[in-house]
Amino acid sequence: MTVKIKDVARRAGVSVTSVSRVLNGEKYVSEDILNRVNQAIEELNYSPSYIARSLKKQKTNTIGVIVPDLTSNFYSTILSSIEETASKYGYNLIVCNIAENLSKELKYLHIFQEMRVEGIIIMHEKTNEEIVNFIRNATMPILFSSVQSPDADFISVLIDDYQAAYDATEYLIRSGHTAISYLGGDLEDVTSGQNRYNGFRDALSKHHITIPEEYVKFGDYKLPSGHRLMGELLALAQPPTVVFAASDDMAVGALNCVLDQGFRVPEDVSIMGFDGSTITDIVRPSITSMQQPIYEMGQVSLENLHRLIIRDKHRPQADIMLQHQLVERESCKTMHPSNSR
Amino acid sequence: MTVKIKDVARRAGVSVTSVSRVLNGEKYVSEDILNRVNQAIEELNYSPSYIARSLKKQKTNTIGVIVPDLTSNFYSTILSSIEETASKYGYNLIVCNIAENLSKELKYLHIFQEMRVEGIIIMHEKTNEEIVNFIRNATMPILFSSVQSPDADFISVLIDDYQAAYDATEYLIRSGHTAISYLGGDLEDVTSGQNRYNGFRDALSKHHITIPEEYVKFGDYKLPSGHRLMGELLALAQPPTVVFAASDDMAVGALNCVLDQGFRVPEDVSIMGFDGSTITDIVRPSITSMQQPIYEMGQVSLENLHRLIIRDKHRPQADIMLQHQLVERESCKTMHPSNSR
Repeated sequence: MTVKIKDVARRAGVSVTSVSRVLNGEKYVSEDILNRVNQAIEELNYSPSYIARSLKKQKTNTIGVIVPDLTSNFYSTILSSIEETASKYGYNLIVCNIAENLSKELKYLHIFQEMRVEGIIIMHEKTNEEIVNFIRNATMPILFSSVQSPDADFISVLIDDYQAAYDATEYLIRSGHTAISYLGGDLEDVTSGQNRYNGFRDALSKHHITIPEEYVKFGDYKLPSGHRLMGELLALAQPPTVVFAASDDMAVGALNCVLDQGFRVPEDVSIMGFDGSTITDIVRPSITSMQQPIYEMGQVSLENLHRLIIRDKHRPQADIMLQHQLVERESCKTMHPSNSR
Repeated sequence: MTVKIKDVARRAGVSVTSVSRVLNGEKYVSEDILNRVNQAIEELNYSPSYIARSLKKQKTNTIGVIVPDLTSNFYSTILSSIEETASKYGYNLIVCNIAENLSKELKYLHIFQEMRVEGIIIMHEKTNEEIVNFIRNATMPILFSSVQSPDADFISVLIDDYQAAYDATEYLIRSGHTAISYLGGDLEDVTSGQNRYNGFRDALSKHHITIPEEYVKFGDYKLPSGHRLMGELLALAQPPTVVFAASDDMAVGALNCVLDQGFRVPEDVSIMGFDGSTITDIVRPSITSMQQPIYEMGQVSLENLHRLIIRDKHRPQADIMLQHQLVERESCKTMHPSNSR
């Protein structure tokens, strides 16, 4: 016997209209009615496929995505994954590249609203008061992907950047390196700037390793800044034995600088990246990198935005942390037999 | 003395409403009125900045872009350039990645129409009857970028792919190569498939060079196909001395295959790419490539779409061909002193 919408209404003790408003994901449904309807749906095992179908009619089926930089290998990979998952769920994807510009971000958020997109994924962390106001008052769910949301009310899908940088640094220490350099990102970015840098610093402290001040330099995540900063490191009287870059693009820039000066990687200097973008596998030597599960991150982001959109009972209530993983490739050498602890 | 709209109307012998309709870029203005108004604007030197301002009010200021594959370095570079130019003109850019899927393309074109975008840039060549019907009946200008439009009524901004491949092949011949291999794209694509392949073939014929059939192989423009096909070439009893790939990504795949098997580029085998994407400069050795002016292509595409949108008197009447250029990097060697003719 098929469960019908009126059965759900009866069980929940609300009107059919109320159930329908919940199913349609309308915003102004009281928390009480929402909970009763969702509980009734659960108890009666009301078919989600029917929900999906009934939802479809009044919807634009469109999701907007804010990307900070389309030329970055990291973002193009995560976008492909979001795109693929969106297709499975029947969503159209509208991508807006803000080129790191906050006033563009705000403008595109307003366009998304006018278009009545059903949800928004933001992959940019820097923000301002107007943007925070917009997302607080937005009529559709907003999810942050690969970055920390500015507000605890919003879900982020990301890795533990602090722990990942800590683990990467410990790996280098265990490989026998003590002259370790760090090429950081923008310290205004919490996730990829501060957290990664703090993880690096704390791992050094824990192992009682001190490094010269000039071993720590900050760029903009992009390839040319990695190349330039590596040039400064190579010009030191005592260059480091390994360079840990806060992005793979900076690691590739550093790699090329070393090769262009006639040195070898990893024989003369080791290099470690962060992100696990496809570029780490494309260059030679390939680059050892602290890998974010980029593909999974896109997929999980879209799936959970979908749950927020349909107000699924399993929709996320807190940030979703994915697992980082160190992927060893060719660019890091061990300084001595690995028996340091 | 400032020229006013009524001066334009008087000079053109039409009503102020007609001038205003022309200025607003409305579709159903007769060719006769359009010409008279545009001529009057020219003769009176009516301020284009005023036109721009008066246009602004009723417009969405949004442009839609159809991209076949966001993970390709070529498309992400051209998109950055379109984005940058769009910003200068005050347009918002909405990007849709169709992942080479024609039914997605059609769906996104309909979404663009519902959104009332002011113009569309399509960077995908394969098409079908429904898409051609859509673009013929579209209410906004559509411009093709980097590919040939399916219909002479639509403007394309592109290079002469045939001539570019011809010139690249002649360069290899002049460098003393006769054992030349070609890694092609999809022959269903006119621009990047057929035209490049025909340019290659004709340059060989002109120089009376014949190559074994197995020196010509076809992939999908992406890196893994270049790697795989290069493996097949290296397994031949007599491998080629140079490989000309129809995309830089395939060239990088071929490069990595050679390096991974312990051979050297260009000492053991030379490699030439096509497109001039940033990846040619990132890998080591860097890749000699027949370069499309990617950045200029994005800029010129957006500028001319803008001219079509505002029905500017200098709007394009025919395809715009940009200049290709061979950029010599490290991956091609000369077989003997260059005195072949």
